[in-house]
Formats: sequence, structure tokens, C-alpha cells
Amino acid sequence: MSAPCHCSHTSTITKYSALSPELQEEFKDPNHPANLICELCRLFYDNNWVTGTGGGISIRDVDGENPNLVYIAPSGIQKERLQPWEMFLVELPDEKILRTPNDIPEELTKSYKYKQSQCTPLFISCYTLRDAGACIHTHSQHAVMMTLFLENKKEFAISHIEQIKALPKLKYNEETKKIEKIGSMEYYDKLVIPIIDNTPHESDLTDSLQEAIKNYPGTSAVLVRRHGIYVWGETVWKAKVYNEAIDYLLEVAVKMTQAGIPLVKET
Amino acid sequence: MSAPCHCSHTSTITKYSALSPELQEEFKDPNHPANLICELCRLFYDNNWVTGTGGGISIRDVDGENPNLVYIAPSGIQKERLQPWEMFLVELPDEKILRTPNDIPEELTKSYKYKQSQCTPLFISCYTLRDAGACIHTHSQHAVMMTLFLENKKEFAISHIEQIKALPKLKYNEETKKIEKIGSMEYYDKLVIPIIDNTPHESDLTDSLQEAIKNYPGTSAVLVRRHGIYVWGETVWKAKVYNEAIDYLLEVAVKMTQAGIPLVKET
Amino acid sequence: MSAPCHCSHTSTITKYSALSPELQEEFKDPNHPANLICELCRLFYDNNWVTGTGGGISIRDVDGENPNLVYIAPSGIQKERLQPWEMFLVELPDEKILRTPNDIPEELTKSYKYKQSQCTPLFISCYTLRDAGACIHTHSQHAVMMTLFLENKKEFAISHIEQIKALPKLKYNEETKKIEKIGSMEYYDKLVIPIIDNTPHESDLTDSLQEAIKNYPGTSAVLVRRHGIYVWGETVWKAKVYNEAIDYLLEVAVKMTQAGIPLVKET
Amino acid sequence: MSAPCHCSHTSTITKYSALSPELQEEFKDPNHPANLICELCRLFYDNNWVTGTGGGISIRDVDGENPNLVYIAPSGIQKERLQPWEMFLVELPDEKILRTPNDIPEELTKSYKYKQSQCTPLFISCYTLRDAGACIHTHSQHAVMMTLFLENKKEFAISHIEQIKALPKLKYNEETKKIEKIGSMEYYDKLVIPIIDNTPHESDLTDSLQEAIKNYPGTSAVLVRRHGIYVWGETVWKAKVYNEAIDYLLEVAVKMTQAGIPLVKET
Repeated sequence: MSAPCHCSHTSTITKYSALSPELQEEFKDPNHPANLICELCRLFYDNNWVTGTGGGISIRDVDGENPNLVYIAPSGIQKERLQPWEMFLVELPDEKILRTPNDIPEELTKSYKYKQSQCTPLFISCYTLRDAGACIHTHSQHAVMMTLFLENKKEFAISHIEQIKALPKLKYNEETKKIEKIGSMEYYDKLVIPIIDNTPHESDLTDSLQEAIKNYPGTSAVLVRRHGIYVWGETVWKAKVYNEAIDYLLEVAVKMTQAGIPLVKET
Repeated sequence: MSAPCHCSHTSTITKYSALSPELQEEFKDPNHPANLICELCRLFYDNNWVTGTGGGISIRDVDGENPNLVYIAPSGIQKERLQPWEMFLVELPDEKILRTPNDIPEELTKSYKYKQSQCTPLFISCYTLRDAGACIHTHSQHAVMMTLFLENKKEFAISHIEQIKALPKLKYNEETKKIEKIGSMEYYDKLVIPIIDNTPHESDLTDSLQEAIKNYPGTSAVLVRRHGIYVWGETVWKAKVYNEAIDYLLEVAVKMTQAGIPLVKET
Repeated sequence: MSAPCHCSHTSTITKYSALSPELQEEFKDPNHPANLICELCRLFYDNNWVTGTGGGISIRDVDGENPNLVYIAPSGIQKERLQPWEMFLVELPDEKILRTPNDIPEELTKSYKYKQSQCTPLFISCYTLRDAGACIHTHSQHAVMMTLFLENKKEFAISHIEQIKALPKLKYNEETKKIEKIGSMEYYDKLVIPIIDNTPHESDLTDSLQEAIKNYPGTSAVLVRRHGIYVWGETVWKAKVYNEAIDYLLEVAVKMTQAGIPLVKET
Repeated sequence: MSAPCHCSHTSTITKYSALSPELQEEFKDPNHPANLICELCRLFYDNNWVTGTGGGISIRDVDGENPNLVYIAPSGIQKERLQPWEMFLVELPDEKILRTPNDIPEELTKSYKYKQSQCTPLFISCYTLRDAGACIHTHSQHAVMMTLFLENKKEFAISHIEQIKALPKLKYNEETKKIEKIGSMEYYDKLVIPIIDNTPHESDLTDSLQEAIKNYPGTSAVLVRRHGIYVWGETVWKAKVYNEAIDYLLEVAVKMTQAGIPLVKET
């Protein structure tokens, strides 16, 4: 799939003149979380990860004045056509809604009633349980196919593929009581990602996602069978890199499975 | 495949100066149906859905002053190189032709004789039978392959894949006598799309397409064996989203079929 | 693969100021055959058809003052980085070389010694035997794989796939002694493309290519086993459309073959 | 994957105003090795060769005043977002570090601590042993899959595919004591690429890579099992072309292997 040109000069970007001067000023920074969500969603759309309005991304403003601010893309919107003013802004830990796209002038929203992302409690879980800086949710077909190959299994595992080294090595710190990154995974490590079963409503995944996160301290992702994957990282760029590496590994794993090659190498 | 850059500044867009001032003014709006047809066709071309001049899209001006106006891309033209003035404009319910690209100055048409799309009666059927806002026709290889796997079957069915939730849940309203959207499909629903057999001439599909639309009140699409698919929606963006989601599901279905995984989950 | 942005404003296009004023004026027309070769090669590169300097395209100036002028991309050059002044210009029927990129100022050529395309005699054959307006040569993997599946066969055949209708129906005209287009192929027609075996040197394909063209009056292409395909058309845009449609059909045929589905439907 | 638009006008390119005037002047040339690394990485990212910060490229300034200068992309950086000032600059033969991105103003580096590429000793080996002008390292899935199909084999071999002709024919010159290019490979030649086993740390590949380079005087690449490939050429554009051709051949080889077609044709 091909999103509108990534260039910022494309005429399909709605003019901001209807926004308040404060918002116009705020969105001038290309690294503003709302702008990054738009940019990454166009990239993800090109990868077939967020088609048909599925998938999404949320970013916590870890480097900003208030690191409890979380920007989340709304529900049911074409992800590759997102505009920065379409994000919901919530504040941790209460998830208090500070701003919604329904506050934006009608000239831009065309009276569309925005709803919060169904993924919100899942994204929030990543921030609460892992201090994530961003969380990405895709409907990657590689994730769907791999969970189908592992229909009755609870986890996906692969070892001895170089790309594994892009993932972080995590360990529970007894003092801080937190999962911390102590380095990167090794080539010979076994990457294990838990798989939870899908539920009719996305928010109903929250309990099983949280349980998987707690039971798998080494993971940076949770696969959802017949649905996709949630991947988080300490910053948005780390989340992006981890997501790319995991999707690459899932794609290779599907090919290996089809070829009858074991995913975990016997040593 | 890669269409010319989606950016509006590309020099391959024919200059409009040869158009009448009225038409130039009309096409300034990027959301004009004729402009949207061009934009979406470039996207569809990138997806290998409208190569070799196949496929197409038509849009009804549902939000305009006259919602009976329908813009249709002409026949046998490279879809990714369409210009807004190349569309046929018809008016429902009589399909009276209000404007054709053959009315456009020769400076732009280079004396090419445009013909109405062979898909016209099929597009019109979607408007007549389902009040569609737009109808998309692709030659998606996923559609072709899936109908080949189901060579003697009359329908495609799949369940328990998250992407199904992008499709609308439709129900016949006894009072209005119309099929109406009452929500979205559920993850555990069985998505069923009728398959009709291809005919030598596209317009000869009309009867079987209309029959399939009537017999499958829950569908938003009709597969044409060894040919492609027709997908409609209440607006152009809904049609686009439904088409993306269905194509994703067809692609996954082909992979599942090749892997021997049942498309409909036994519960 | 992704070529530099198709937009004409990209800075990777070498400045023309070193060219003579006449050439600068000549290349202002985006539809100049030399410019079209560049544009199409970028598109073909994106499709993996002309990687590693393989493949190419030549265009005859059918609508120009002298329809015997033929522009041909040089040998061994990265096709997606071609510049219009890099083409060889020959004149039929003697193939007299009128212009070569070696005539261009060194400031642009960087003293590179251009060689005529190895495909030249093959391109010329299409012009001589079929009055083609353009000829495209790709190293499409779909072509390579299909000729491998048909290792000892002399032709590729497929029927009953809608995309076949993009190809022209050709017939020998007893009066003009030429093969002429009398319409388009039908859905139920059997599309037959001859396969010739590859030779160590591309020019050595000339005899077998000419023989195939003569023995298959209905074809618009010749497959070269383990190599790729040559496709021609009455104009460059027809050649492009035919090439797209054939490549789509080869891709579907590979999938059908892998699935054990007959390419020609028994009726 | 889709990198930011290749156009140079994209706003994601960091402003250079924070750089010294000398560096700003240096990077004005689009053919500066540092700029070429950025451009090629965006292309490679689109091909899924350098996702998750994997892979890389280094270029020796063969045509510059000092052909011992080597530019190398840093470790662990998103390759498609590289900026020219992020390169390490070393000088052969001692690999003396002349410039690092850690010398660049914090305004651009955001205090990020750059590390030299893990591939450095491997790149340097190509320059030392083969007088390469550039060396490309990708995590191509075609390379990974092919080395998995050849799990216990020491080399990959394929013959009688046209694309082989893009690779150089190399021969040891008794007088100069160097491996030299004496032409291009032939269609009927057997292309042989050695496979070395992966190691936990990339630099530990150096010995086996050097051994493979010495034992295979005809090769322009070394495959690393379950990891990817290193490809070099006499200039950056040759390296790019060889890499494209080899990746094409690996992709075809995977398809041939899955179809049970021998890679080396019996003659």
C-alpha cells in the first residue's frame, strides 16, 4: 500500500489555519508526538500493518516537560491520513483526558465524532507496567499467520537469527522493582513472545495482556492470535525499531515453518 | 507497482489552462469526486489492483448539492495516470450522461475517443440496490486466487480474524425497505462474500451481480471468479476501507488455504 | 525496490546546463521518448524488473516528424538513474546511429564510455517485423520462474483470467501483409506466448526471437527462458499496458502452478 | 518498508546550520560518499534489507584526493534516517579515526553517543583484500533463507540465470598479486558465493570472512548464515549493482529450491 507522499509539503495535509495559534505553534515541531504518530502511521500503512483503519500507535512525551502526557490516535480512522490535531491527549496515571479531536473546530473535523482508541487500556498497560515511551499495535499478516501456525501454543520462540540482536535484553531490577534494559539480545538467545487469544472487544484483552507482560519479563511484545501484535519500547524510535525487527523475525519464521525448518536451533 | 509521486506538484499532471474557467474552479477542491478517483487509483495501482488498465472506481456525490451525480472513470485508460477531467458524469436514476471527457478540448484529450466504463451498469447496481456512496472494482490477485481455490463454490467465507471488524454489519430494515448499517462486524462473525462466475463481457455480469447483492443482504462486496471483486460503501472512504480490509482477508485466506488451515473456525 | 522520487523536481536529476541549448529545448517535453524511457525505467525498477542494470526499453517516435527515429537506453547502466541525454538515437531501417551519449559533454558523462544496448537487434526486430511503437525488456522473476516450470516447453499458455482482455487480438492482413490489431483478446481466449531458450550473448537471441515472432502472429511478447521477456506494442503506453498485463498473468500463473491449478481451463 | 521521500526537499532532513561552514560546504555535493550512504540506505530500507538498524554500507573515496578515506555508517542507528554528518571517517591502512559524529554539535546529535559500526573490520577487510570501492552489508531475508536451505553447506551456487551476467568475472593477476576484474560473468557460468557461519559478535566474523575472500577469488560477496550478506565492488555504484543482482539471484534461488528445481543446471 502506498500512503500519500511522506513529504510535508503534500497538499493533502489539511491547512492548519483553522486551529488556534497555540496549536499551530505546537505542531510546528516535526518531532512532536502527534506529528510522529502521523509520520509513522504512513510508514506502517505502506507495510500493510494498519490497513482498513486497524492498528495504531501511542506515544508518551518522555522527553517533554510532562512525561505523563500520552498521545493516542483515535479509533476507526484511516491511519495513513491522520492529522496531528486528531489525537487524544491523556495524562497518566489517571488517564485524564486533556484534549480530544472533538475540541477542534468543525471546519477541520467536518462534524465527525471521534472516539478514543479501543487500544487505549492496552497502550496504558505498557506505560504502567513497563514505563514504555511508546506502544505500537499492528495487524501484521506475519503475526496473524504465525499465531495460526501456533494455534494451540502460548508462545512464539525463535533463536539464532541475527535480527534478534535488535531486541533489548531485559531484566527485573530487585531494587527499583522494575524491568530494565541491560543490553541487547544475543544471536544465540531464544526470543520468546507470549501469545494471548483474541477477544471480541479489544479492551477485553487488557487482563490477558497484563498477565502476559508480567509473566514474560524478557519480552517487549505480546502477540494476539488471529489479530496482530503489541510492541513497546523506551522511546518511540526504540518501539519502531523493535517492531520492525520482530516483524522481520515473524516473516522469516513463517517462511521457515513453511519450509519445515525448526525456529529454535538445537545446540 | 509505483505510480507517479502522489504529491500534487508533480509535473506529469496535465496543465488545466486548456479547461474552461468553470472546470478549473471545480477541480480546485482536492476532495472533488473526480480528484479522489485519481488519487485512489494511484494508490490502487501501487497495490497491483488496477494494472493493465483493469479495475476502476466510481463515486456518487453524496454530500454535494445533487447526490444523484455519479463520477465514473472511463474504460481502457491507465488508472494511475487519470486526470479529473477524464471522468464521465452521469445522473441517477436514468444514468443520463451529463458530461464526458469527449467534451474536453482536444489540447488535453489529444483526440482520444473515450468510452464509458464497462463497469458502469455494475457500479450503478450498487447505487440502486444499496444506496452506495462509492463502488470500487479491482483485479486483486488475492481475489482471483481465492476464487480459483473455490472453483465450484458460490461463496467465500472466513471467521475469527480481527480485520473482519472493519466491515459493516448490515441488516434489512422492514420500514425503509433498505439494507442499512447497524454497526460493525464482530471478530467471531463469519464474513460471507458471494462469488459469481465471470462472463466474456463485463456488462453481462449485471444480472448475476444484482442477484448476489439481493441474496446476500449482509455483504458489501461480490467476488467475480478469475476476475476480481466489486466492493461498495456508504462513502468513498468507507468503500476504500472495506476494500482494504477485504483484500487483507483474501490475502490471509490464500495463505491459510495453502497452509491447510480452515478459513471458518469451528466453535 | 524504490527509485528516486518520480517527481521531476528531484535534485538527483543532473542539471542540463551543460547540454547544448538545442538539446535542453528538446528535453523540455515530458513526453519526449527519451524522457519517457527514464520515467518508465524508474517505474520498472520499483517492480524489480530492471535491477542490476538488466532489462531496458526502446521507443520509436511514431507520432513525431520522423517515425523512423528510435531511442534506446544504453547497455550496463542503472536503469532507474537514466537521464534523457544518455539514450542512443538510431534511424530505421538501416539502424544508422544519429546520436550517442558519447557525444555529450564530459561534464555530464564523466568520461564514461557508453555502449549500445545488447538488446538493440531484438528491439529492432519488433519494429521491423511488427511495426511496434515501443519494446520493453524485463528480467521479471515471474517470467523466469514460469519458464523454469515449463523447462522443456516451447510456449506459455493461459486462459480464462480477466486480465487477458488487456492484450490485443492480432491477425494477419492478407492485403497489407502485416499483423494488425483487430480488437482485444477475450476472457475465454487462450493467451499463448512463445518461449525461446537463452543464449550466452543477448544479440544471439535475434534469430530465435524473429522466428518466434513469425510463428506466433497472435503474440505481443516472447519469453526468454531463465532470462525474462520482450513485450512490444503499437505505442509506448500500449507496450507498457501489455507488459503489465502479461506480468500479472505470469505472476498468477506461477501461483496457479504451485497450487496445482491448470493454466488453461478445459471447456 | 517506505523511507521518507527520497526527494532532497523533505523536511525530515535536519538543518545543517548547526554544522561548521566547512562541513556544510563539504556536504553540498550529492555525490559525497556520506550523502550517497544516506541515499542508498533509504533505498535499502525500502527493500527490507536494513530494517531494525541492521545492515549498513561503507564507501571509500576512490575518486577523491585521498582514496584512503573511508566513510562508515555508525552502529545501531536507523539506516533510513541517516544524516551525512553521522558517518565515521577513517583512513587506511591504519584505520585511524579522522572524524566521528561525536565531534558534531550537540544541537544535532542530541547528546547521542555514537559507536563505530560493528561491521568496520569486515568492511576494512574488503578494502584491504580486494581494493574495494564500497562494501554493502544487508540482512536480506533471501540471503537468510538460502543459507538455511543450505544449513550444512559451505557455499551457494547457481548457474544459467541471465542476471548472473551483472556480476564481475574476477581473476588473480600474477604480476600485481591482486584479484582483478577481467570482464563480466557469463550466463552459463556457475556463480559461487561462500557461506560462513554467524558468530555472536559481528567483529568475530573477520577471520572467516577473510578466509572466504582468499579461498574464493572469483566471488564479490560472502554470505553469513542466518544473518545476511556482505557484497563489495570497485565503486559504490558497482557494489550497489552487484548487491541487487545477487539479491535477485538469491530470491529466485529460494523460489527454485521451494519448487524442487536444481540451482545449477546439468550440462
